[in-house]
Amino acid sequence: MSALEKVHGHIEGHFDEHLERVKAFVRQPSISADGEGMAEMAELVAAQIREAGGEAEIVPTPGYPVVYGEIDAGAPKTLLVYGMYDVQPVVGETWDVSDPFGGEVLDLPGLGPSLVNRGVFNSKGPLIGVFNALQSFRATGEPYPVNLKFMVEGEEEMGSRNLPGFVEAYKERLQADFAFFGFYAQDFTGKVIMYLGVKGILFLELIARGGAWGGPTTRGIHGSNAVWFHSPTWALVHALASMFTPDQKHILVDGFYDDIVSPSAEDVQLLTRLADTFSAETQLEENDVHRYKYDLSGADLMRKYLYQPTLNIDGIISGHTAEGTKTLLPHEARAKIDVRMVPNMRPERTLQRLQDHLERHGYADKIEFVVEDAYPPAKTGLKGNLAAEALVKTYQDLGYEPEIWPHLAGSAPFYLFTEVLGIPTAMGGLGHGARAHSPNEYATLDGMLQYEKSVASFLVNLGGDL
Amino acid sequence: MSALEKVHGHIEGHFDEHLERVKAFVRQPSISADGEGMAEMAELVAAQIREAGGEAEIVPTPGYPVVYGEIDAGAPKTLLVYGMYDVQPVVGETWDVSDPFGGEVLDLPGLGPSLVNRGVFNSKGPLIGVFNALQSFRATGEPYPVNLKFMVEGEEEMGSRNLPGFVEAYKERLQADFAFFGFYAQDFTGKVIMYLGVKGILFLELIARGGAWGGPTTRGIHGSNAVWFHSPTWALVHALASMFTPDQKHILVDGFYDDIVSPSAEDVQLLTRLADTFSAETQLEENDVHRYKYDLSGADLMRKYLYQPTLNIDGIISGHTAEGTKTLLPHEARAKIDVRMVPNMRPERTLQRLQDHLERHGYADKIEFVVEDAYPPAKTGLKGNLAAEALVKTYQDLGYEPEIWPHLAGSAPFYLFTEVLGIPTAMGGLGHGARAHSPNEYATLDGMLQYEKSVASFLVNLGGDL
Repeated sequence: MSALEKVHGHIEGHFDEHLERVKAFVRQPSISADGEGMAEMAELVAAQIREAGGEAEIVPTPGYPVVYGEIDAGAPKTLLVYGMYDVQPVVGETWDVSDPFGGEVLDLPGLGPSLVNRGVFNSKGPLIGVFNALQSFRATGEPYPVNLKFMVEGEEEMGSRNLPGFVEAYKERLQADFAFFGFYAQDFTGKVIMYLGVKGILFLELIARGGAWGGPTTRGIHGSNAVWFHSPTWALVHALASMFTPDQKHILVDGFYDDIVSPSAEDVQLLTRLADTFSAETQLEENDVHRYKYDLSGADLMRKYLYQPTLNIDGIISGHTAEGTKTLLPHEARAKIDVRMVPNMRPERTLQRLQDHLERHGYADKIEFVVEDAYPPAKTGLKGNLAAEALVKTYQDLGYEPEIWPHLAGSAPFYLFTEVLGIPTAMGGLGHGARAHSPNEYATLDGMLQYEKSVASFLVNLGGDL
Repeated sequence: MSALEKVHGHIEGHFDEHLERVKAFVRQPSISADGEGMAEMAELVAAQIREAGGEAEIVPTPGYPVVYGEIDAGAPKTLLVYGMYDVQPVVGETWDVSDPFGGEVLDLPGLGPSLVNRGVFNSKGPLIGVFNALQSFRATGEPYPVNLKFMVEGEEEMGSRNLPGFVEAYKERLQADFAFFGFYAQDFTGKVIMYLGVKGILFLELIARGGAWGGPTTRGIHGSNAVWFHSPTWALVHALASMFTPDQKHILVDGFYDDIVSPSAEDVQLLTRLADTFSAETQLEENDVHRYKYDLSGADLMRKYLYQPTLNIDGIISGHTAEGTKTLLPHEARAKIDVRMVPNMRPERTLQRLQDHLERHGYADKIEFVVEDAYPPAKTGLKGNLAAEALVKTYQDLGYEPEIWPHLAGSAPFYLFTEVLGIPTAMGGLGHGARAHSPNEYATLDGMLQYEKSVASFLVNLGGDL
């Protein structure tokens, strides 16, 4: 029996214990938006690194600390594991379990027993899964195939605002042969999806207020005054509307699309291959959506998905929003918007174009910009990327042919690995979960088990000769 | 000493007692938006009518009851007093007093001692002021100059939705020679302002939801999906923007202005006279606003104010509105809007035009309309309106020359008096208060005293030969 077989056997034979470790990890709230449980969670992560035989450090930043750790296994190669210990807020959400942090297992239709808990999918489940896999190496007396470094941040859901500073400060210690971000990469049909990069993000709050230009300045006033006083709420609505076509397909900001490059030759190949396995229907079903914005299919639809920047309204609020009538001319209106940037777009230039647009349309004195989050897209590539190649081999070893995407439509600060540190990077793992940022976030129990096995295989593949 | 002099003397000599009665009346919360204290408040109003020697009835409606009352004074003429016992909500507001229902007196800069309390200005202060004036007639042994009827509703802040049904049912019993709605009609400089009518209102909630047309249907989903799925929030923003010019001056709904008529000859005269005393500066100052929408002054500005319908956003909400970042594609977006209708506009036709507009622009399947409030404008006129003439005489008797406006920019269901019951109607009284629908709503103590005196004079003027 090979070392890997022994480790896999241990994971299968001890999954009940591993599941208890997962539950303990996700039951600890760690909401970076309001700070709940963040200090406790950082300690739990550090404790896992120490239990795995490493040294852990809770490194302060101007925001939440980064948990940094090293495990010297005496191996020739070193893997840097990136993770996050913060999760999305649950305020205002209605869950099918009594407590979004209750660690409850529900038998979900068509999915089987699943852990329903904030953060179990995004992304504390996969993080503790790495530690569970390591536990099975130790329990079977097998050495870790690679040395490990850990960089686990507490501000991913806030745009990783202090991670760049940390990476700059720890640049030397963070050097490694590969970098890995683990997550459950199977969709609900079991298909493995692999992403070779991420979009960038620019998350802004736009705040319209009454001022010298007009409108109430200190409080909402009686709505009948709207006949002769300006409304900051209307200013915000019109400013937003000026930036995007009513069919929601085209951003009207000058120069917005200027930096976008055509897909690389490798990406075009991937897109073509993708068209065979990509299921547009599955995407609709997973999101409870009836139709796409575009009357496209296959590679054309995916090309839009991956190479089109987006301007999204994450939230908007002004005035009287409670039950009943109240005629009010509000003095303030706020919108949170985000731009997903595709390859070659840069946050600084994108922000400048948005500001220029609002200035040109006469909103400079009416609307304030607050940047809450900003980082560029990142591409890892496949050919010659040893981490990605090892992950593909892992999937194949375990009987899966991954559907490989040029990159993800979501965002993560992976430019820190690809641009700043320059380390071959991969992301994924077996397992299935969904509803990130939504009520009833879940991961299936069987998927968690498969994830741990895939992590063990991945480490072996990284450590051996590919 | 005349009867009126005796009553005025009693009011002045017993104002401390009257103030305690005001405080008790406004300290009782009565928030129709959430129901707090409504039943208790209706009882307090009925008790006042009974104490004044009348019969009171709390008449159920499908919503909050109407308090109806009659006082037979054996007089030849009868006055119908309209009032409201509900007030605006205070949720989300920050007040300078510890309790918006605490009945606290603050010494306000430039105004003197003032009662700061929700509803003291709009409109429970003026209502209890009528009962205080009646108390002084009784205390001095003077008979009431007119018989009185009372119709006090509990849904004014919800658009008086059940008042039309009540008026229909009580049409015969509501017959009277005059109708009166009392309020503090002096601005903070002491000038008396008199309104000969009101605008109508159409208060709607627009609800955009994902559906067959696209967008998430059951929950907010991860914001990265905005690249290929529609957003109900963007649909609402664009639908709103399509209805109003960015300079906030012109409503873009077809036919919206078609029913509007030019000011009557009497109104044109009033407008011209108004231009002499109207202070555009005072309006800005009272509302903490730096400038008007229009570069107009005098009669031209007032003509906009009074003869221009408005489309106002009272509130808007969608998605993530708490602190911090959360990238979300929301499944629902809501806006509360109101249209103030000027003379000759009708709510049914206005609603139809808004619906036609949204249908023409492709929003019929995306946005639902909920009518929360709807009634037409009302004009009382001055010449030949015995109630209005008696009120003008009252002001003059007390040393004030009122600034007479063709109508108010605000709304009240006075079409019930002018159109349905056909009774000469007047509204006003001395006194000063402000910040209706806002934090720190107040009325000055001296103004309350003057208000009671003006009500006493008004009753005498109504009862005598003018």
